[in-house]
Amino acid sequence: MPAELPQSLAAAIRFDRTGLIPAVAQDHASGEVLMLAWMNADSIAATLASGFATYWSRSRKRLWRKGETSGHTQRLVELRLDCDGDAILLRVEQVGPACHTGHRVCFFRAVREGGLLEIS
Amino acid sequence: MPAELPQSLAAAIRFDRTGLIPAVAQDHASGEVLMLAWMNADSIAATLASGFATYWSRSRKRLWRKGETSGHTQRLVELRLDCDGDAILLRVEQVGPACHTGHRVCFFRAVREGGLLEIS
Repeated sequence: MPAELPQSLAAAIRFDRTGLIPAVAQDHASGEVLMLAWMNADSIAATLASGFATYWSRSRKRLWRKGETSGHTQRLVELRLDCDGDAILLRVEQVGPACHTGHRVCFFRAVREGGLLEIS
Repeated sequence: MPAELPQSLAAAIRFDRTGLIPAVAQDHASGEVLMLAWMNADSIAATLASGFATYWSRSRKRLWRKGETSGHTQRLVELRLDCDGDAILLRVEQVGPACHTGHRVCFFRAVREGGLLEIS
């Protein structure tokens, strides 16, 4: 049985056919977009209950509290839902780098002069 | 035939089974996360060629240049790709509100005191 979400959130949210919704994590202080990951109802409930961003790992098929092994946790400041109910924004306090590569953010490559380059 | 992407981008990007990738639009000046939409190869190529954010509308099943009817365009400042190649960040100059509801950003609802509230 899925964990309970706040009723008004549950009524507004639209998961995809696989029960997931994309979640953007943003550093609440700097405004940096840190990463995009996926959540299901249980991971949203776990995030709200624990105060730490918890995603659904599509590869490992299990809940994954960000930083559970690396220590690079994301303390939840605010959970937002978009107009259509099909995307989440997590405003967080990021400890250490957000990216498993060690980069501060996962979006460290950009198109420049016609090619994809590392920019940080 | 899909439009051509820069070779290094095409090699790194990982579309989902339906040929789409989620794209986060961020105001490059304020850092606000404006919205999340979807792109396919053609929409990425159109975005890079035109300099304006162009998405794939999943409901209308066609390319959709943001602001084509509302005038609320997004001039592309930078297109970034994440570490896994399965999410895009568009840093843009947003003209007018980003949201079709008239809100500045699509993420105008947040969980507060156990319920979902409009915060802007």
